[in-house]
Amino acid sequence: MVESLRLGVAGLGTVGASLLRILQRHGNDLALRVGRPVVVTSVSARDRMRDRGVDLTPFAWFDDPVALARSNDIDVFVELMGGADGPAAASVRAAIEAGKHVVTANKALLARHGTELARAAEANGVSLNFEAAAAGGIPIIKTLRESLAGNTVSRVYGILNGTCNYILTRMEREGLSFDACLAEAQRLGYAEADPTFDVDGFDTAHKLSLLTAIAFGSEIDTDEIYVEGIRSITTADIEAADELGYRIKLLGVASWSDGGIEQRVHPTMVPKSSPIARVDGVTNAVAVEADFVGRLVLSGPGAGGDATASSVMSDIADIARGDVVGTFGRPAHTLQPYRRAGIRAHEGGYYIRLAVYDRPGAFASIAKRMAENDISLESIVQRRRAPKADAPDHPQPLEPQPVILITYDTTETQVREALDRITADGHIAEQPQMIRIEQLA
Amino acid sequence: MVESLRLGVAGLGTVGASLLRILQRHGNDLALRVGRPVVVTSVSARDRMRDRGVDLTPFAWFDDPVALARSNDIDVFVELMGGADGPAAASVRAAIEAGKHVVTANKALLARHGTELARAAEANGVSLNFEAAAAGGIPIIKTLRESLAGNTVSRVYGILNGTCNYILTRMEREGLSFDACLAEAQRLGYAEADPTFDVDGFDTAHKLSLLTAIAFGSEIDTDEIYVEGIRSITTADIEAADELGYRIKLLGVASWSDGGIEQRVHPTMVPKSSPIARVDGVTNAVAVEADFVGRLVLSGPGAGGDATASSVMSDIADIARGDVVGTFGRPAHTLQPYRRAGIRAHEGGYYIRLAVYDRPGAFASIAKRMAENDISLESIVQRRRAPKADAPDHPQPLEPQPVILITYDTTETQVREALDRITADGHIAEQPQMIRIEQLA
Repeated sequence: MVESLRLGVAGLGTVGASLLRILQRHGNDLALRVGRPVVVTSVSARDRMRDRGVDLTPFAWFDDPVALARSNDIDVFVELMGGADGPAAASVRAAIEAGKHVVTANKALLARHGTELARAAEANGVSLNFEAAAAGGIPIIKTLRESLAGNTVSRVYGILNGTCNYILTRMEREGLSFDACLAEAQRLGYAEADPTFDVDGFDTAHKLSLLTAIAFGSEIDTDEIYVEGIRSITTADIEAADELGYRIKLLGVASWSDGGIEQRVHPTMVPKSSPIARVDGVTNAVAVEADFVGRLVLSGPGAGGDATASSVMSDIADIARGDVVGTFGRPAHTLQPYRRAGIRAHEGGYYIRLAVYDRPGAFASIAKRMAENDISLESIVQRRRAPKADAPDHPQPLEPQPVILITYDTTETQVREALDRITADGHIAEQPQMIRIEQLA
Repeated sequence: MVESLRLGVAGLGTVGASLLRILQRHGNDLALRVGRPVVVTSVSARDRMRDRGVDLTPFAWFDDPVALARSNDIDVFVELMGGADGPAAASVRAAIEAGKHVVTANKALLARHGTELARAAEANGVSLNFEAAAAGGIPIIKTLRESLAGNTVSRVYGILNGTCNYILTRMEREGLSFDACLAEAQRLGYAEADPTFDVDGFDTAHKLSLLTAIAFGSEIDTDEIYVEGIRSITTADIEAADELGYRIKLLGVASWSDGGIEQRVHPTMVPKSSPIARVDGVTNAVAVEADFVGRLVLSGPGAGGDATASSVMSDIADIARGDVVGTFGRPAHTLQPYRRAGIRAHEGGYYIRLAVYDRPGAFASIAKRMAENDISLESIVQRRRAPKADAPDHPQPLEPQPVILITYDTTETQVREALDRITADGHIAEQPQMIRIEQLA
């Protein structure tokens, strides 16, 4: 009889409870697949008494996850508590030091301490697996770590936050404001009471930092990511994007250029014809561009207890079979220091929306500022608002008019400079809106 | 120094040449990732003198692939010759018997002998990997074998043949006939001079049979697949599909129901809103529905030397790291005999196009036949063709009129019976067209 693989599970929220259900329902089949039984021996959570719909009596209970991590009755420590520091970090470190394999769904922990933990795991000869930490049920970590072993990746990008994608999809379909859609997402449980982490882009940045490390073999540097959330997106932007053949998505993008890495998270105008543009609601999608395979796109559930537990179980199955892959797809000591992409700033097209006072010379002045900054315009859309009903014959309404500009490729520095000057000239009524355009095949 | 993993490559067509280029370009990085050098020691091909753009002088040459498979200078036999029997089958068997791991891109070989070869590999303690045999560069085999270890799959389906998808995409976009688009595909190298294997659905069936074995843990049975190709699809069908909110794709579908498996390959009407409907040109896509993860969709290049070689390299990397996964994701001796889905035939909606003679009672007679077979109609579209210019006042043109029927869920037996009776009644001018509708979320 082959020895069982013994799991200690810390954290029994929705993912932990789903993991126990997978083992109940598919334990026999799993044992067949991996060649040995996989059993939970011990668990830890904050509240022992909470009803999780799962019988916990077969398992040893630990109040302290660090004690569980060091227990002699486990081979794998499954960390499902969350949090970049605190008990999660302490117990993962303890497990690695005690020679236990670790499986975690904790993106915040890895975004902050991933390089250090990967090196510790390597030094102690254990696995540190984290398929569930990026894009939920989508097997993007395994794909990058293993399937693309014969490729050099040039770009990885995706929709990595279901909350933001749900809100943008609803704004587009229903013509509702960001605030209204956020409130709806909160009612449906797709957004937290404090939505900052999701809607301001930090969740996407954490996940992107993990994909970047594998894709480019670099140490993790979440602080190097430019992060901008979706709060400033208006229905006017979404409508204008639609007319111009684009949709607006919150993308995380990591690319290799000029001997360095560029990482950004921001609302992005993507061509409607691109596969990523068609990913709606809470679904996530990740695209990888690499020299031999070309482009792969993986889409699926980015969150939810069952889908996330499916990825946790994939990591456990790898350990049960004895498969050993470096945490980031290569030996942790070979990860290169993070190197930011060269001197040139990000180049690309930009969407600019201005609220321009409708008076003589305003538009000429704007055009002059763009030209001064060497910005060529691909298109200009000025749609005169209907004059107010009570002043139909007003000769020069002071109501500002929306003007949409689409630039050819230029640098962010040039665009920002031009917009600063346009703002100083006093012809516009609000802060200009600026959204990057990503050319995706 | 860790020992190198030594490869013997049989078959130096586009995939073989790409594989050699990957090792030239990324050999050092690959060695870092997998922990040991990976080197080609020996090669075999039909024509030693052909210029492949790759220097073969470093490699031992074998005229006979079976001799290469048994060579003491290789650890892995990489079979890229193709063909269900002949040298491919002989050399793969020889390699397994000689205790060599095997990596193959040969779908025909596995579709015919997969169960037997998997058992032989298991008995000899070697790996038999075949990521490149289904959907080219898409990591669907690894996803099914490893990532979904904690799931029960209910359905797997996809666009698995780039030639057919290219032809259908061109027919739709350009309004051209099947024959015209096939000729174009042949000119561009997307279709063979003899296109039978692709356009009649056999290539898709071979690939599907491999996905089925992993998804449901069953022995391979390609003969159990219902196969219908795309030759009968007309622009009239594509236009009608478009108006009704569908697109026509050649799908391979395998599903589990009533304690058995249903496998089919046929042109399918899929809702435009489904991700699979939006996969255009030579791109492939596979969707998997499973109990915990929900639905995953993977898309990417289904063919081409570089993309296919990327998958071959993924298999080689797994062997280099020492990862051992059963050929079909579980021990070969536990594969269950293939069991066809229960007594009930396939149920679903159907699209039917009839060329009806425009005379009194014709339509009533058709409606009666449908009712007699308990078929309810979801929609009926009858678009009267403009009368011929030289007979504008002809009271009852004998020119047959196209009538499109969409049925609610029914069985194929019932539809076929009704159509036989309608044909016998003599009201229609041509063989009826019938296309299955697949309800995809």
